[in-house]
Amino acid sequence: MLTLQEIQNAHQRIKPFIHKTPVLTNQYLNKHFNTEIFFKCENFQKAGAFKARGAHHAVFSLTESEAQKGVVTHSSGNHAQALALAAKNRGIKAYIIMPSNAPEVKKNAVKDYGAEIIICEPTLKSREETCNQVARETGAQIIPPYNDVRIIAGQGTAALEFFEVVDDLDYILVPVGGGGLLSGSAIVAKSVSLKTKVIGVEPKGADDAYQSFKSGKLIPQTNPQTIADGLRTSLGDINFKYIQQYVDEIITVEESTIKNAMQLIWERMKIVIEPSSAVPLAALLEEKINIVNKKAGIIVSGGNIDLKNFHW
Amino acid sequence: MLTLQEIQNAHQRIKPFIHKTPVLTNQYLNKHFNTEIFFKCENFQKAGAFKARGAHHAVFSLTESEAQKGVVTHSSGNHAQALALAAKNRGIKAYIIMPSNAPEVKKNAVKDYGAEIIICEPTLKSREETCNQVARETGAQIIPPYNDVRIIAGQGTAALEFFEVVDDLDYILVPVGGGGLLSGSAIVAKSVSLKTKVIGVEPKGADDAYQSFKSGKLIPQTNPQTIADGLRTSLGDINFKYIQQYVDEIITVEESTIKNAMQLIWERMKIVIEPSSAVPLAALLEEKINIVNKKAGIIVSGGNIDLKNFHW
Repeated sequence: MLTLQEIQNAHQRIKPFIHKTPVLTNQYLNKHFNTEIFFKCENFQKAGAFKARGAHHAVFSLTESEAQKGVVTHSSGNHAQALALAAKNRGIKAYIIMPSNAPEVKKNAVKDYGAEIIICEPTLKSREETCNQVARETGAQIIPPYNDVRIIAGQGTAALEFFEVVDDLDYILVPVGGGGLLSGSAIVAKSVSLKTKVIGVEPKGADDAYQSFKSGKLIPQTNPQTIADGLRTSLGDINFKYIQQYVDEIITVEESTIKNAMQLIWERMKIVIEPSSAVPLAALLEEKINIVNKKAGIIVSGGNIDLKNFHW
Repeated sequence: MLTLQEIQNAHQRIKPFIHKTPVLTNQYLNKHFNTEIFFKCENFQKAGAFKARGAHHAVFSLTESEAQKGVVTHSSGNHAQALALAAKNRGIKAYIIMPSNAPEVKKNAVKDYGAEIIICEPTLKSREETCNQVARETGAQIIPPYNDVRIIAGQGTAALEFFEVVDDLDYILVPVGGGGLLSGSAIVAKSVSLKTKVIGVEPKGADDAYQSFKSGKLIPQTNPQTIADGLRTSLGDINFKYIQQYVDEIITVEESTIKNAMQLIWERMKIVIEPSSAVPLAALLEEKINIVNKKAGIIVSGGNIDLKNFHW
């Protein structure tokens, strides 16, 4: 099992390439909730999301001979940009498999980091097959977006920095999609703080982690319906094991509350976050846990949005 | 004439009540412009804009007996919230005259700070008359939004903090509406730095400062047409004198460029700014000044927006 020590090692390894993102608070929200809420702002992270942490850790964990032939993944989201950047920083090649319907803006972001984009059919099957094929043909290492201990260790470094700033959180709330951020955060929280409850938060329209956690067996996500595009994926089996062991509770929230939470953060905190990042605050708005006079920490996962898609 | 010393005194006076806002940079923008751009982020200021500085300075400059009877202003914008907050912090009453067509969201923000709102007809004449009448009846001190040396000294403190962080700016770019921020910034810049050029930037659709600067006489703004709602007002005559003395150039920019600049800052820097704050970056996008390999500072004036009004 992954330990705190390995996450601390990951932190040392990736430090030169990532931002130590700020922890922000907001007077209005604290007053509104009668509590103290701390936001670890990974929307200010390199490539706009916490994904830069895991990607850099995975890429810089490769031996010289492994790295030589490059890395490959399939993603149309933040992992694609993060891996492209990490590969650029190591000076190696990245192949990014993207579905033919991926938005231009996402393709351009990946190209900007110098990665090679390979277009496939917009199905999971085609994505995985193309990815495996590229790996076979080029010898590139596959770097999955979350179901991977190197990735989990990297993502856990956000919580590590968070506890450096606020060491007595009563709660840490983390959005859960594939589970990389939640499992990494949970390992850290339970290692450094006896009192901190670790809460995963998920859209009701993509509640596979909640269903899996409740039933004790991994239930894949089918047909997710949520604005939180980063949380539509299925929980990974490696992530699930850590979540079962270290997470206290998984909470689901309504779409309308996610939007309200996002608007609150934009308008009150003046920071741009993506919908997935609003999901933990939505749990507080729905009063799913009692945080009065408690210290609650929220990991803001990212800030990559296409403004043209937003109508308030 | 107002001096650096008075702005330093203002800073000491208001320090307990305002945020020392961060200075941010963005790798993408620096690469794009082949330069270094520094953003002094007053969107993170108390009440969401630099206006908190001037309002606090004016309110805390009052003698005890003056302050006793409260303060009054007419504003539907950031000055209204700023003055309400400053009065609250001094523990005195604020009367805010607002036009009947002011948005609910703005009225609520002012009410949240405990101020008394007095509604008038939506004309400048009615606003001024109502303000004078309230002042007469209550004995409250009138605190104008910009045409006032106490306000100018307060607004200048943003530039003071800016030069503490980056002391060798080649340019400082400041949006200009009433001219409080620009005149205060110009006094500071010219006092602390021989090399810094001070540039005011204004929407082409509300170019009274540009016209006034060019012709050497104050030309009032009539029928302003711009998304930058903070910059629709006429330049104040007191502000104009400082601008004539200390500002190097006033540049005007197109509406479409303001929107592009705002989108760039939201999407790339992950911060929420109001349209007025995007105006200086618009000047760089229009290549109105050559900043290659130079250090350019931009004062981001505020972040108060109603997301419902935005369609990208």
